[in-house]
Amino acid sequence: MTTQVIVLNGGSSSGKSGLVRCLQAVLPEPWLAFAIDTFVDSLPASLRASLAGIEFAPDGTVTVGPEFSRLEQAWMEGVAATARADAPVIVDDVFLGGADSQSRWRKALTGLDALWVGVRCAPAVAAGRELARGDRPPGMAERQAELVHRGVVYDMEVDTTHTESLVCARTIADALVTGSGSR
Amino acid sequence: MTTQVIVLNGGSSSGKSGLVRCLQAVLPEPWLAFAIDTFVDSLPASLRASLAGIEFAPDGTVTVGPEFSRLEQAWMEGVAATARADAPVIVDDVFLGGADSQSRWRKALTGLDALWVGVRCAPAVAAGRELARGDRPPGMAERQAELVHRGVVYDMEVDTTHTESLVCARTIADALVTGSGSR
Amino acid sequence: MTTQVIVLNGGSSSGKSGLVRCLQAVLPEPWLAFAIDTFVDSLPASLRASLAGIEFAPDGTVTVGPEFSRLEQAWMEGVAATARADAPVIVDDVFLGGADSQSRWRKALTGLDALWVGVRCAPAVAAGRELARGDRPPGMAERQAELVHRGVVYDMEVDTTHTESLVCARTIADALVTGSGSR
Amino acid sequence: MTTQVIVLNGGSSSGKSGLVRCLQAVLPEPWLAFAIDTFVDSLPASLRASLAGIEFAPDGTVTVGPEFSRLEQAWMEGVAATARADAPVIVDDVFLGGADSQSRWRKALTGLDALWVGVRCAPAVAAGRELARGDRPPGMAERQAELVHRGVVYDMEVDTTHTESLVCARTIADALVTGSGSR
Repeated sequence: MTTQVIVLNGGSSSGKSGLVRCLQAVLPEPWLAFAIDTFVDSLPASLRASLAGIEFAPDGTVTVGPEFSRLEQAWMEGVAATARADAPVIVDDVFLGGADSQSRWRKALTGLDALWVGVRCAPAVAAGRELARGDRPPGMAERQAELVHRGVVYDMEVDTTHTESLVCARTIADALVTGSGSR
Repeated sequence: MTTQVIVLNGGSSSGKSGLVRCLQAVLPEPWLAFAIDTFVDSLPASLRASLAGIEFAPDGTVTVGPEFSRLEQAWMEGVAATARADAPVIVDDVFLGGADSQSRWRKALTGLDALWVGVRCAPAVAAGRELARGDRPPGMAERQAELVHRGVVYDMEVDTTHTESLVCARTIADALVTGSGSR
Repeated sequence: MTTQVIVLNGGSSSGKSGLVRCLQAVLPEPWLAFAIDTFVDSLPASLRASLAGIEFAPDGTVTVGPEFSRLEQAWMEGVAATARADAPVIVDDVFLGGADSQSRWRKALTGLDALWVGVRCAPAVAAGRELARGDRPPGMAERQAELVHRGVVYDMEVDTTHTESLVCARTIADALVTGSGSR
Repeated sequence: MTTQVIVLNGGSSSGKSGLVRCLQAVLPEPWLAFAIDTFVDSLPASLRASLAGIEFAPDGTVTVGPEFSRLEQAWMEGVAATARADAPVIVDDVFLGGADSQSRWRKALTGLDALWVGVRCAPAVAAGRELARGDRPPGMAERQAELVHRGVVYDMEVDTTHTESLVCARTIADALVTGSGSR
């Protein structure tokens, strides 16, 4: 069966966006790319502002408001409907809720063939790249590096610590072609 | 019945993006905003590049490749699914195909209560704003100003030539509250 | 004598950036554009962060740290040196210190022929545009609208409330050509 | 003697911008950062457009118009004046003219203590990063990787191929502290 959705999950500054662009470049067919960041950009400014503090809870628990979750759920349904309408989709998300986040996506993607990819990066390296890009509040990268993978089950994982985005993208593209993974 | 989708149609530099942000600010409930620009951003770079020349056909006819149309259609289905999953949606599009573009959206939005809004701006004023923003190729604003409204039927129209975005947004928001329009 | 520097001063969201791009388009010679925003972008992230609260002092007084002022002064000297090296320059600034800010620029620009332009916008309109652009903290536009003009002396003023940027730009360009103003 | 200017030279997508942000973060004093990209952004749109094709000459020769060179020279004088006014400056440039570009900077920086740093990146790796960032025309990275270093003399070189920006930044910062190099 043909993969219809590639779900990339990784912490902030783990290199997901660059990986997505490389994937789009190396995959022979055109894939659409939807990121959690573009969902956040689609929100009213007032809701975006109230989100800013989300991942700072000292004990690591994540509590987003019910309004945010409801809208996010609707967006997930939209992404799934796009894939069902025959446009293959790459999703780029940060599973702040770990296994719970994956479970929500699984429900939204019911009936679709998905490839689940973990995007790892050593916390210290991700923190350095966060500093280098200069457009993220310091600390997110390190805090999310392990958190987002808790309890998540992948078909494959890539690690950008010592491997360039383009090389990681080729590894994922090859997995699609050979049909490996639990799809 | 409650409006679930607001579709804004207008040429480049007619002020749609600013109008969307003002609408999100004045509407009492949170609305998600999806723009044709974000769809284009979700495409692979190679397909975006081949798009660049689309609107330059000297006779005004618009020919996008079949691949673009197929992916765009899937994106429209996704937007509709998001609205059906109870997230009200503002769509910001440029109907390069005029009535045909509206017809495609009508099909995708079947069963949803939509408010169709034409966003007008005098061509010369739009051209000046295009120059002022500095991130669009010169000429798009003037060329699209009338073209995108050909044969399109609206519930209401706003004109940004002499009216600020926030004022236009309040006019649209009032139309929702009072339930006017052909919905 | 030929104008070598055009200094535009106005509050946030008064339309200075668009006006600068229009000016560059209508002026027959190429002019370089330097904005206080680009100076702020040239600072280390840590210093930018400490700046964020600057204009929020409840009594309207503005206190920037000595380090910021020292670096800003050096940047002003650089802008002046660029103009002295025969590149005409448009400066786009927000005189949070009113007449004091102008006095600092006067010193830096010693010996250069400058045109001082006040960029006005009705506070309520500027606040609406701030909302429409969506990338500025709400409140800056209204708070700065009058403040930045206190005690400042201009050669000419433009008002973007009801006049498009391109039209304002042509007015300024004409002033240069006819040699009006106190230069 | 104290270093007043750090000049970083490297091809497109060699990692200069990230390196600059890391340098600003690790250096104990605040340094201002000026990039050739910000100079290009300060130009009128018409001149920027005519620049786009600059580095595509098939034989590798680079011919920019006299107007561009004149304005660039004035900008260099401005950067030097900023440093002379006691703001330490990091310059981030692409020496399309190799040794000639360095010679122009040497003249502008007369009397200032400068540290010349070559930023290397293996052409294939730079090309992959160009693809990953997605905002540069493909081919620039590979074409410039060696070209910009021709005949240029450095105090030190860093290589981002296998070394993170933050680590490279620390190497440069250490060189400043220990006073090594030909300054």
